[in-house]
Amino acid sequence: MKIRMGMIGGGIGSLIGPIHRMAAIMDGKIEIVSGAMSSDFKKSIESGEAVGIPSDRIYTNWQEMISHEKLLPEEKRPDFITIVTPNNLHYAPSKAALEAGFHVVCDKPLCINSDEARDLMDIVTRKELLFCSTYNYSGYPMVKKANELITNGELGNIRKVAVEYFQGSLSFPKEKMGNKRAKWRTDPITAGLSCAMADIGTHAFQLAEYITGLKVTELCADLTATLPGRQLDDDGNILLRFENGARGSLLASKIALGEENNFRIKVYGDKAGLTWEQMNPNDLIVRWPDKPYQVYRTATTFDDIGETVQLHSRLPAGHPEGFIEGFANIYRNFAMTVEALKENRKVNKLYDFPGINDGLRGMLFIEAAVRSSDSNDKWISLE
Amino acid sequence: MKIRMGMIGGGIGSLIGPIHRMAAIMDGKIEIVSGAMSSDFKKSIESGEAVGIPSDRIYTNWQEMISHEKLLPEEKRPDFITIVTPNNLHYAPSKAALEAGFHVVCDKPLCINSDEARDLMDIVTRKELLFCSTYNYSGYPMVKKANELITNGELGNIRKVAVEYFQGSLSFPKEKMGNKRAKWRTDPITAGLSCAMADIGTHAFQLAEYITGLKVTELCADLTATLPGRQLDDDGNILLRFENGARGSLLASKIALGEENNFRIKVYGDKAGLTWEQMNPNDLIVRWPDKPYQVYRTATTFDDIGETVQLHSRLPAGHPEGFIEGFANIYRNFAMTVEALKENRKVNKLYDFPGINDGLRGMLFIEAAVRSSDSNDKWISLE
Amino acid sequence: MKIRMGMIGGGIGSLIGPIHRMAAIMDGKIEIVSGAMSSDFKKSIESGEAVGIPSDRIYTNWQEMISHEKLLPEEKRPDFITIVTPNNLHYAPSKAALEAGFHVVCDKPLCINSDEARDLMDIVTRKELLFCSTYNYSGYPMVKKANELITNGELGNIRKVAVEYFQGSLSFPKEKMGNKRAKWRTDPITAGLSCAMADIGTHAFQLAEYITGLKVTELCADLTATLPGRQLDDDGNILLRFENGARGSLLASKIALGEENNFRIKVYGDKAGLTWEQMNPNDLIVRWPDKPYQVYRTATTFDDIGETVQLHSRLPAGHPEGFIEGFANIYRNFAMTVEALKENRKVNKLYDFPGINDGLRGMLFIEAAVRSSDSNDKWISLE
Amino acid sequence: MKIRMGMIGGGIGSLIGPIHRMAAIMDGKIEIVSGAMSSDFKKSIESGEAVGIPSDRIYTNWQEMISHEKLLPEEKRPDFITIVTPNNLHYAPSKAALEAGFHVVCDKPLCINSDEARDLMDIVTRKELLFCSTYNYSGYPMVKKANELITNGELGNIRKVAVEYFQGSLSFPKEKMGNKRAKWRTDPITAGLSCAMADIGTHAFQLAEYITGLKVTELCADLTATLPGRQLDDDGNILLRFENGARGSLLASKIALGEENNFRIKVYGDKAGLTWEQMNPNDLIVRWPDKPYQVYRTATTFDDIGETVQLHSRLPAGHPEGFIEGFANIYRNFAMTVEALKENRKVNKLYDFPGINDGLRGMLFIEAAVRSSDSNDKWISLE
Repeated sequence: MKIRMGMIGGGIGSLIGPIHRMAAIMDGKIEIVSGAMSSDFKKSIESGEAVGIPSDRIYTNWQEMISHEKLLPEEKRPDFITIVTPNNLHYAPSKAALEAGFHVVCDKPLCINSDEARDLMDIVTRKELLFCSTYNYSGYPMVKKANELITNGELGNIRKVAVEYFQGSLSFPKEKMGNKRAKWRTDPITAGLSCAMADIGTHAFQLAEYITGLKVTELCADLTATLPGRQLDDDGNILLRFENGARGSLLASKIALGEENNFRIKVYGDKAGLTWEQMNPNDLIVRWPDKPYQVYRTATTFDDIGETVQLHSRLPAGHPEGFIEGFANIYRNFAMTVEALKENRKVNKLYDFPGINDGLRGMLFIEAAVRSSDSNDKWISLE
Repeated sequence: MKIRMGMIGGGIGSLIGPIHRMAAIMDGKIEIVSGAMSSDFKKSIESGEAVGIPSDRIYTNWQEMISHEKLLPEEKRPDFITIVTPNNLHYAPSKAALEAGFHVVCDKPLCINSDEARDLMDIVTRKELLFCSTYNYSGYPMVKKANELITNGELGNIRKVAVEYFQGSLSFPKEKMGNKRAKWRTDPITAGLSCAMADIGTHAFQLAEYITGLKVTELCADLTATLPGRQLDDDGNILLRFENGARGSLLASKIALGEENNFRIKVYGDKAGLTWEQMNPNDLIVRWPDKPYQVYRTATTFDDIGETVQLHSRLPAGHPEGFIEGFANIYRNFAMTVEALKENRKVNKLYDFPGINDGLRGMLFIEAAVRSSDSNDKWISLE
Repeated sequence: MKIRMGMIGGGIGSLIGPIHRMAAIMDGKIEIVSGAMSSDFKKSIESGEAVGIPSDRIYTNWQEMISHEKLLPEEKRPDFITIVTPNNLHYAPSKAALEAGFHVVCDKPLCINSDEARDLMDIVTRKELLFCSTYNYSGYPMVKKANELITNGELGNIRKVAVEYFQGSLSFPKEKMGNKRAKWRTDPITAGLSCAMADIGTHAFQLAEYITGLKVTELCADLTATLPGRQLDDDGNILLRFENGARGSLLASKIALGEENNFRIKVYGDKAGLTWEQMNPNDLIVRWPDKPYQVYRTATTFDDIGETVQLHSRLPAGHPEGFIEGFANIYRNFAMTVEALKENRKVNKLYDFPGINDGLRGMLFIEAAVRSSDSNDKWISLE
Repeated sequence: MKIRMGMIGGGIGSLIGPIHRMAAIMDGKIEIVSGAMSSDFKKSIESGEAVGIPSDRIYTNWQEMISHEKLLPEEKRPDFITIVTPNNLHYAPSKAALEAGFHVVCDKPLCINSDEARDLMDIVTRKELLFCSTYNYSGYPMVKKANELITNGELGNIRKVAVEYFQGSLSFPKEKMGNKRAKWRTDPITAGLSCAMADIGTHAFQLAEYITGLKVTELCADLTATLPGRQLDDDGNILLRFENGARGSLLASKIALGEENNFRIKVYGDKAGLTWEQMNPNDLIVRWPDKPYQVYRTATTFDDIGETVQLHSRLPAGHPEGFIEGFANIYRNFAMTVEALKENRKVNKLYDFPGINDGLRGMLFIEAAVRSSDSNDKWISLE
C-alpha cells in the first residue's frame, strides 16, 4: 500500500523542501498527491508540477488545500500532510490539518511558543492522530543503536552528556545580503524567540534526550547575537542538568566560521561511554574501561549489529548512508505507522519517530534558554 | 517530464535491485512503469507490486516484457530498460531491449566476454541509443571533482595511480552456505571468467580510467582463488601501465576479512596528488608541494567548489551524501540525457554517465587480468 | 653549553616525573645533576641513581638539596630546579629555590591558592629569575602555529572559543583502590580546591588564553563530584566570557569513561576558524569561508609552514611527533632562555614558554570556578 | 648501568643523525662517549661538541676512531658503535667495528649488496656480537602488538598482505638543486642498486615479514625512475608471494607528490584482519567477522593491552607517542640486551630488535626487485 502525502511549503527555492520530498519518496512507500508548496501561486504550480502532482491537486494556499482535500473520497485523500514552512507558519496549518482529520508531519521547531505547542498537543491527543516533528537526526541508524545500548544498560547509569552543534552559515550578515533563509531565521516575526537555539539547538536538545532517554530539568544559558544588528541569538552555550542528576552541556552556533554541520554527542555512563558525529553518521564509537574501543557500523548485512540497525539501514556494510536516508527513516517509520493504523494493527515498535512531545519539549527548551540568558539567576527550570 | 523506466531483475531478495530502484526514483525524475523483476513469476508479481507497478505491466520474463512493451504507444512505453541480473544475463536482455528501440541501463560488468561487449557496442552505435553501464562510483560528486581537477591540469602530468578495493564478503565459503549472491558470483557459469575482478576490480579499473582520463595499456596480474574449491579469483594484485607512461597498481579482494567496502584511489601528478575514499565519499584530499593540504567537500552551498560538484550534490555542506545519492546521479544524468534527446536538444555535458565503452573496457580488463595471471609473461596488453 | 638541572620529586613510581626527565634530556641540551626525587630516602637514592645522578648530589629532601646545592661553585651548581610534586608541595620548594637564586620549572597548577601564586610572582619579579609553569600543551608546534595565525590576524576578530578536555581516569573510585595518583588528586589537602579543574581544567584554560591571546574575564561554572564520597570535582562545565566580548565554553572531566586524553580546542573568528586536537597533535585544521579547508602540519622540512613550526619540530613531515616532544619544547625553550641570560644576550622570542603569569592565571581560574559553582549568581569575575 | 655508545656519521646537517641521537638518549640508558660524526674534521668536532662528547673522544674519521677506542680500558670503551652514514659507508665501518669487538647499530639498508651483507653476517656470527639494523618501524608498540596478535593466532592463517609506503620527497629533481640527501640517495655510487626500494621499500618489506612472521619467497616488480635523468628507481610496485602461500603487494614511492611519510600495512587472515598506519602509530585497527571493529591503543596504563605494549609505551593512554619513541624502543631494547650480555644473564625476549638477518633480507629484497624489474620473467625468487 502506498501512503498518500500532501505538502504545504517546500517549493522551488526551498532548502529543506526537496529534502523532505526525497526522504518521503525514496523507499517507494509514500506518494505525493497534492500540494500548496508556495505562497506565490505561480511558484506553487511550478513546484507542484516539478514534483509530478496533478494540476487539480495543486492549490493557491494551504487553507484552500485543506478545505478541498478533506472533502475528497477516502481513497484519494492524503493520509497525511507535510508542513515545510518558516517557524511562524507551523501552528496554523498543523492545527487546520489535524482538525480536518489528517495526520501531520511538520518541520521543527514545532511552532513559536509553548502555548501553541500545548494546543497542538491537545488536538493530537483529542483526535487520536499521528504527529511527527521532524527531528530527523534521531532517524540515523547509529543514533538508534546508541539509544538501544543505553536502554539495554550497556553504558550503565548515565553521568554526563556533551552535545554540540556548530555551523558557520550565519558568520556573515547574509540576512542583509538577500539570502531568504537567513532572513526569516534571524527575524523574530518568522523565527520566534530564537535563531540558533530554535534552528539547531533544538536538534541537539532532542538528540540528547532521545539517546539517553532522560529529560533535562534545568539549564543555564549564555546566548549571543554576535553580529551587529542581529536581534536573535546566533550562538549559545548552555549548562544542562538531567532528571537523574547527570550533568550536561549543549553548545550551538551559527557563527562557527567554516563549520559545515558539525553535530556531535558524547554520553558517558558508569560502564562505558559513546560518541556519535553527524558528519560520520555510520560510525558509533563505544569506549570501554577494559578493552579496546569499538566502532559499531550501519549495515543491513552484519548480523550481530541487531534488528534496530538493520531495519534502519538500506545498504550492505561500507556503502555510506547519509542525511537523506536518515531523514527517510523518519518518513518510512511514520508511513509504516499510518499504514498499521489504517489496517487496524500494531506496528513494530522499532519503527519510531519523533512526535508531538518532542515538539513541545523543544519549545520548552527554547523558552527556558532565552529566559535563562536574560536572567541573573543561575538555573532555570524547563517547566 | 517524468522519464519512464522498465526493470528486468532486481526483485525481492536482490541486494542491488532496491539500490537501483531508490537511486532511480529519489529525484522524482524517473517513474517505474513495468517490470520482469524475477525469473520466478510469483516473485516477479510480488516484487512489481511492492514497487507500485500496475499488474498489467508485470511480466513473467524479460522476453515477454520486451515484446509487449515495445508495442505500447509512445506515451506509455518505457523510455529505458534497467537490467539488474547476474552477469550471464546481461547480454541477451540488453540486446533485445536495444533491438526493440529502448535505451538501456545495465548493471556491471557489461557481460561475459569482450565478444558480447563488442556486439552490444555495435548495436548501440547502429541504433543511436543510450547505454549506461552502472559503474556507479563515478557518480560521486568528489569523484567528478577529482576528474575535473585533473582535466584542468591542476595535478599536472599524471605519474602514478594506486587504486585498491577491499571487501571481506567472501572470506568464508558462503557459496556453500546457501548465500545466493555468493553462489552466482563464484560460479563460472553465472559470473564468467572472474569473481573479484569482475565484481569489484572492474569498478577500480573504471574509476582509475575515469578520474585520470587515461587508458591502461598493459598489466601484470596475480589472481588467486584463496578458498579451497573456489573456481574463480577472490583476490588479485595487478601492476598497471597507462598510455602516457604512468605506472599504477590495482588491488582488489573479496577475502580482506573485516573490510566492508574499502575502495580508495590515489593519483599523483607532477604538480599535486589526490586521494579519494569511497567510505568517506564527501572528502577529496588534495596535497600540494608548497601549502597545507586541502579537503574539497561535497555541497550545494559552497560557491567556490564549482558547478560540477553543485550539480551532483543534493544538500548543503556537512549533510552527508552517500552511496545511493552517488548512484542516483548516474540515473539522474541518464534521465536528463534521455529527456534532452526526446526534446531534441543538447544536454549539459556535466550530466555524464558511464557508457557502453566503460562496459567494454571492463571486459577487456577482466580478460587481460585472467590471461596475465595464467601466464609466465610479465606484461599483457589490454587489446 | 649544557644547562644543569636539579630535580625535586618525580622519582620511581611517579607518572609525570619520567616525562619531565625525558623531555628535559631528549635534545641533549640539559643535564640532570642533582635530585631529591622522593620523600622516601631509599627511593630518592634509587631514583637518582637510575637517572645517573652522582650519589653525592642525591638528597634526602628538597630543603637539604637547596641548602647544599646553592653553596656549590657556579660551574657545578644547577642552573634551574624542576619541581614535580603534588600540588601542595609546589609553593614551598619553588619559593626556596627562587630565594636561593635558582631559576625554576614547576609542574602545574602553580600551587594551592592565588595568595601563594602572587607571592611566587613577587619573588620571581624581585629576583629577576626565570619561572616556567609547565602548561606543556602550549609546546606543541601546531598550538604555536594556531597562536601565530591568530596573532597575525588570519582568523580576524575572535568571536568564540570551545575547549574541552575529557579523560576517564577517575571513572572508578581508584583513590580507594590503592592508586596513589588518584588519592592525592582527589584529596583537598594535597590537591587544593579542585581535582578536575586543577588537573586538566587549567590546561584547557591556559591553552584557550595562549592560543587566542585573550584573557577570560568572567565565568559561570557547574562543577560536580560525581562519585559518591568524592570531595572534589571530577567533572565540570563552564561558560566563559573573554575580554574582547568573545564567548566560550570549557568542559573538563575525569569521569568521561573510556576517553584517554581527549583535549580539543576550537576557535572561531570573523575570517576563519580553527581546530586542534591533542590526540592528533600534528594537525591544525583551518576552515575558511571561501575555499576548501586546510590542514597545517608539524614538520621541519616544509618551508612554507614558517619558522615557528620549524623551530618546534624535530622531524621531517609525516614522522609523528608526540607528547614528549611537545613537552621537550618547553624545556628546550626554557634552557635556551637560561643560556641566553647566562651569556647576557637576547633569546629569539619564538623560544617562549608558559611562565609565572600562566601559573597565577590558573589559580585565579580554579578559585573563580569553584566559587561560581557554589554560587547562585550567574557570572563570577576572574579577579 | 649506562651503556656507552660511539657514533660514526650523523653530524650537523644530517637528517637521521639527530634522530638516532635523540632515540638513543631519551630513556637515560645510553650515553654517547665518542664520535667521528662527519668526514669533515671541523664539522666532526662541532658535531661532537654539540652532543657533549669530550674533545679527546672526537675523531677525524671512523678508522681512527675505531683503532683508538678499541684500546681504551673496558670501563671507558664504548659498548657499541652506531653507524649513520650513506649506504655505501655502512659495510666498512660495521666490519671494522665488529672486528674490534664492538657491538654495532647500523642504519638501513645494511649495505650495498648481499655479498657484503653475508660477510657481515659471518662476522657477527663468528664473533658472537650484537648487530642491530635499524628498521625502526618495528619498534612501534602497535607494530609489536600486531605481531603478537598474529603470533598468538588471533588472525588465523594469513592469506593476504598489502603494504605501501608513499612519500613525495623526490617529486622534484632535488638532487640537482643542491639537496645532499637527495643527491646521495639517487646516486648509484652512494645508494647502491636502488633509491626508493633501498630507502623505504626495505622498511615496507621488513615490516611485512616482521608483523606476519612469514618470509617472502618470490616477487614480481615494476620499478621506475620517473624523473628524467634519474638513474635509480624513485617508485615501484611489487607483487609478493609468501612462504605459506599468502599473496601480497608492496608499493613504495618517493614521487607520490604531497605524501609525507604515508606507510601503511594491512594483513588479513582467515579469522580477522588488521591495519596499521605509521602516521597514526598509536592505533591498531582489528576487524572481526562477527563484532564491531576494535582499535587497540598504545599506553602504559591500560592493563588489558598486555605486557608487550606496556614495555614499549612510555606514557598513559591518549598522550601521543611518536616516531622518536618508536625508534628509541629499538635503542632501548638493544641497550638492555647489551647490558644483559655484560651481566651474563638472559634478557626478557620482549626486548627484541631488528638484527643482521633483517639487514640481509633487505639486501636480498633489493636485489630481487631490481632483477625482476629488468626481467621479462614474471616471478623472481628471493634467493
